[in-house]
Amino acid sequence: MSQNVYDQQEFFENYIKINRQTEGLDGAPEWPKLHAMIPDLKGAKILDLGCGFGWFSRFARSEGAAHVRGIDLSTNMLTKARSMTSDDGITYEQADLEDVTLPETEYDVVFSSLTLHYLTGLPRLMLEISKSLKPGGKFVFSVEHPMFTAPTTPSLTVDGETGRKVWLVDAYQREGPRFTNWCMEGVRKQHRTLGTYINLLLDSGFRLTDFVEWCPSESELSENPNFEVELVRPTFLLMGATKN
Amino acid sequence: MSQNVYDQQEFFENYIKINRQTEGLDGAPEWPKLHAMIPDLKGAKILDLGCGFGWFSRFARSEGAAHVRGIDLSTNMLTKARSMTSDDGITYEQADLEDVTLPETEYDVVFSSLTLHYLTGLPRLMLEISKSLKPGGKFVFSVEHPMFTAPTTPSLTVDGETGRKVWLVDAYQREGPRFTNWCMEGVRKQHRTLGTYINLLLDSGFRLTDFVEWCPSESELSENPNFEVELVRPTFLLMGATKN
Repeated sequence: MSQNVYDQQEFFENYIKINRQTEGLDGAPEWPKLHAMIPDLKGAKILDLGCGFGWFSRFARSEGAAHVRGIDLSTNMLTKARSMTSDDGITYEQADLEDVTLPETEYDVVFSSLTLHYLTGLPRLMLEISKSLKPGGKFVFSVEHPMFTAPTTPSLTVDGETGRKVWLVDAYQREGPRFTNWCMEGVRKQHRTLGTYINLLLDSGFRLTDFVEWCPSESELSENPNFEVELVRPTFLLMGATKN
Repeated sequence: MSQNVYDQQEFFENYIKINRQTEGLDGAPEWPKLHAMIPDLKGAKILDLGCGFGWFSRFARSEGAAHVRGIDLSTNMLTKARSMTSDDGITYEQADLEDVTLPETEYDVVFSSLTLHYLTGLPRLMLEISKSLKPGGKFVFSVEHPMFTAPTTPSLTVDGETGRKVWLVDAYQREGPRFTNWCMEGVRKQHRTLGTYINLLLDSGFRLTDFVEWCPSESELSENPNFEVELVRPTFLLMGATKN
């Protein structure tokens, strides 16, 4: 079973304070680029994997989606998601993405935001997603960027010799668990290379259509100097792919 | 015009001593993975961009290619390439890839090994390559990996705190020239992100089919302990794409 940090009180209490939870999609800096990958949702059947508080599920309905199925592992997240809507066109459901079985040729769009890098069983899930999409259907997702997940001990530091701000990359090619302190100690995620993400898509019957290593624009940089670190190395990887 | 280090005597005298020049394709550790991306060459018309000493051009002919056109900027390289064959099915030609014009719908395969990261005008060349391929034709190339070209001052060092071997990444999102000391001082190459390479392909009418961040196998590692650094971060990026 997946590590379910969202049902650990310490994590959850810190997590609900971050921008992307208090402000929803507009609190996520990478959202406009992810949004641009999403096709017209009018009348579409949507699957939202790791739906969290349901920000995307509600967005999809507001764009005219016929139905949205949101799946999450966390009781906390689903309770909050359900409390935020009374829309019959959204169904929230508790399941573990490590072993979920999806219906065949059902969805027009599958969406997943910052969820897949927590899973060990991604090859299996990728095939389930592919199977569940109609031909020409689209899979749009974001994960933590492999350059961001690679270090065994994440460290952004200043290089004594050159004065540069540097990100210390080790073990990029050693895939597997990484532990970070984010909202609580010992959050476990799975490091995968870019090659693995791309080849999982290609091997699961997808055609790559969109690829963004999120980077702030000049105006975003001047409004938020904290984004400077994003020029050193990307945090977010966004991809879109159509089913063959 | 491109920087033509291969016609600078100091660079050339050092360059001809490295394995991939003395032993050809088999001296390049990434060759087997690149080879696997290349379709059947029997009867094919081939373009070899940055052909160097012509190792790939001769390989293509040995695999039954009908004709190979090898292009390089360097007089030194072409003189040596011409001295190594008397095959009428290979034509070597001096041209700058920054402004070369290619014929339309001419080639079955375009190949380029460790050349494109020296060019500033890659968007233009990518469109020329796409134009020059027959529909369904394949473009196979290698470049230095963006994680390898990113640092403004390349440095592999040992982190004092953790004892890890680390690669110091800065300025990944700042594309443009980088200067390294390789075979001589001040060799200029162009850093591009992975996103830029992939989107140049997609925007030029290609479908991505192959993507490898080269990594030594366990047996290659035990035979050559110098490859350990390749686990820290990749040096080579190999891609294959078919023309729509």
